[in-house]
Amino acid sequence: MSFEHTRKYYKQIESAIRNEDRDFIVKELSEMHYADITEMLYYLNTEDCRYILDSLSPRVGADVLSELEEDIRVEFLKSFSSKELLRYIDYVDSDDAVDILNEQPVKVREEVLSHMQDKEKANNILELLHYDEDCAGGLMAKELIKANVNWTVLQCIEEIRRQATKVDKIYTVYVVDDHDVLLGRVSLKRIILAKDEAKIKDIYVPEIAMVNTFQAEEEVAELMQKYDLEVIPVVNVQGKLQGRITIDDIVDVITEQAEIDQQAMAGISESVEPNDSVITMSRARLPWLIVGMFGGLLGAKFIGIFENELTLVPAMAFFIPLITATGGNVGIQSSTIVVQSMASSPSVQETMAERFFKVLLVAIVNGLVIAGLVFVFNYFLGDSSLAFVVSAALFSVVMLASFMGTITPIVLDRFGINPALASGPFITTTNDLLGLAVYFSVAKVLLHM
Amino acid sequence: MSFEHTRKYYKQIESAIRNEDRDFIVKELSEMHYADITEMLYYLNTEDCRYILDSLSPRVGADVLSELEEDIRVEFLKSFSSKELLRYIDYVDSDDAVDILNEQPVKVREEVLSHMQDKEKANNILELLHYDEDCAGGLMAKELIKANVNWTVLQCIEEIRRQATKVDKIYTVYVVDDHDVLLGRVSLKRIILAKDEAKIKDIYVPEIAMVNTFQAEEEVAELMQKYDLEVIPVVNVQGKLQGRITIDDIVDVITEQAEIDQQAMAGISESVEPNDSVITMSRARLPWLIVGMFGGLLGAKFIGIFENELTLVPAMAFFIPLITATGGNVGIQSSTIVVQSMASSPSVQETMAERFFKVLLVAIVNGLVIAGLVFVFNYFLGDSSLAFVVSAALFSVVMLASFMGTITPIVLDRFGINPALASGPFITTTNDLLGLAVYFSVAKVLLHM
Repeated sequence: MSFEHTRKYYKQIESAIRNEDRDFIVKELSEMHYADITEMLYYLNTEDCRYILDSLSPRVGADVLSELEEDIRVEFLKSFSSKELLRYIDYVDSDDAVDILNEQPVKVREEVLSHMQDKEKANNILELLHYDEDCAGGLMAKELIKANVNWTVLQCIEEIRRQATKVDKIYTVYVVDDHDVLLGRVSLKRIILAKDEAKIKDIYVPEIAMVNTFQAEEEVAELMQKYDLEVIPVVNVQGKLQGRITIDDIVDVITEQAEIDQQAMAGISESVEPNDSVITMSRARLPWLIVGMFGGLLGAKFIGIFENELTLVPAMAFFIPLITATGGNVGIQSSTIVVQSMASSPSVQETMAERFFKVLLVAIVNGLVIAGLVFVFNYFLGDSSLAFVVSAALFSVVMLASFMGTITPIVLDRFGINPALASGPFITTTNDLLGLAVYFSVAKVLLHM
Repeated sequence: MSFEHTRKYYKQIESAIRNEDRDFIVKELSEMHYADITEMLYYLNTEDCRYILDSLSPRVGADVLSELEEDIRVEFLKSFSSKELLRYIDYVDSDDAVDILNEQPVKVREEVLSHMQDKEKANNILELLHYDEDCAGGLMAKELIKANVNWTVLQCIEEIRRQATKVDKIYTVYVVDDHDVLLGRVSLKRIILAKDEAKIKDIYVPEIAMVNTFQAEEEVAELMQKYDLEVIPVVNVQGKLQGRITIDDIVDVITEQAEIDQQAMAGISESVEPNDSVITMSRARLPWLIVGMFGGLLGAKFIGIFENELTLVPAMAFFIPLITATGGNVGIQSSTIVVQSMASSPSVQETMAERFFKVLLVAIVNGLVIAGLVFVFNYFLGDSSLAFVVSAALFSVVMLASFMGTITPIVLDRFGINPALASGPFITTTNDLLGLAVYFSVAKVLLHM
């Protein structure tokens, strides 16, 4: 469906709501995927969203609520009583239920939990609420199928039947011992092909990738990516099975991390969404603008030292933007390459020293090309008096900026700071100042001022 | 395992290879996941890698080859005859086999294909070789289980048994009609819980997300992310089932796209890997450096117009870096926010006009804060004569850079260019020049020169 098409369709839905044409709405919604219904809600006002949700079965409504973006869900659920929320929570997977309840006031959260029909689920949610949002425990869901290693296949199938409505997607069956310690897994394919009386212990795969509840979400993402998993079990320190994390949540983690890195590179200090307020937006952007501003003011003070020289050779001022821009560009390129190589798996037979040597060679090549081109332009087309000074300074700036760009992310990472910051205003500000220092020093020496 | 630990372990493996201790190697490898073996290969030299591969069963060797990074695999397989390659290709999933064969010389490719035991698989690979690498057809694998809608559950189970060794992970069973047109799917859970004599037509889920062979990989990624899928079927224009795409390949697409965007933001024009040559590295970086250089030279020419004014008020030169840096920082922030909002789903009841109005407000707030702070500093601590000029110019630069940063990604996207480029040297170069123009114009007017 094209965008135009969808827009028109949403208008149709809107007017059906105006006319209270519940039958039309229900019929239309029954043919839509919950993710499409969620997307539609982003276009409707809060009242209309409420009308849509009321037209859905609690099961589909629960999927829609799980799918909604956090800040929009918070707004939307403000008008819900805990009784109304309860209608859906029973159908929401435990990991999403935790997210939703975490966004609610404590009173609502406790009312919902104490009134839930499914006491086991309520306890599961209560347990999950204890975990940090960005660790494995905070990502996992309790819905899974586990089989005792001593069971037969038939017993396992009965367990699947018992949990069928609760566990929507099974992925795999986890095999545990009598103390709930995770031993391995057995795929549904194997269960289908095995005889009913076969023992689980004879068909399960013992070796299994797993994570601990306390591991960071980035580590979970790395593991699942490395082993090409669509689901990973979570255990506690005793090795007991606690839950499972599915790849859809990890895809969100990866996308989010890429966005955070992009914002770090752009010098935006808080995660901002397009529908944040003007104040939030400004606040996220001002810190690095102010850092840049202080850099600029320091630069001004620094150039001020050379006021006399500038009066003698005003042409020196002409090349300030060339110097600072080149330093910034080279610095950002270098740091991005380092940041990306830090993120990917450590590569082939190259030592740290060889890496640095290569960085040095690339800097020399680029520095010679840029300085050479500028020299040609200046010498033949313009200010030949300064041609040598500008090119010598440029070459030094390229070398220095490459070095700074390479070293900064490594240092930041060592101190536990997101190295992507090094590809942002941090490096441009530093390189502006370094560039100016190099330029005016070179000029002073070469022009014998 | 810590990094230190692994390093030591690799050394141990290396010396076992030196001593030709095949038993030790085989024993160690049998306990390792193929992804870990692949990672180890990155540390060993080509000969040792070959020793490792020869110590593996062809099945595990096939997994290792599929997992290797492309450029390293190309190097590594150079020493393989087509007969040696053949040993593995039979065990490689069709999508990975296509990738591997695509990297080989035509002669090797054809020899392997013509000597493959499994003719059906050879034909599948031949078919897949026709698709572009970055469309759904190029990502899909042919390994899947399909069931005719008129079958019973028992017939479906027999099909699963027949394909058991070929299709490693099943995910779901696709339901087709007599002409292979995709109708829907039935989960393994449902098959396990259904009676043997139940008809597929009575238990399958008709509504299903699917993609066409020609759709771009980004679209596939978007769909799978939206609908939280771990696998998606691929059909041709007649709706006939052609293959399936699994989420692990899509996770790679998402990661790669994020890397490309980062490189665009950093002004690196080709995808570079840490182990590329110095020439490749320099070539990837020079284009945008040269664009920046021309920007800088143009800036020099522009400032040159104001040589007389600079001689009169040399302090004007002091603030050039402040002006250009602020313009660059604001521009990159603005464009990154736009790029990210373009990537995420269109959000709540905000029209384009409202968005622009908000951008304007944020720019005014940030402009006032920065210009105000600089005014205070300049007026009370320094060059009060220029204080008003600098701050007025800064405010204008913030406004202009916000506008340029917002509009550029939208324009680039309209022309089919990656909008992330707008957060890179493109915008900083433009904003440097605009900033200089604003600054010197404001100075000329306000100082009545």
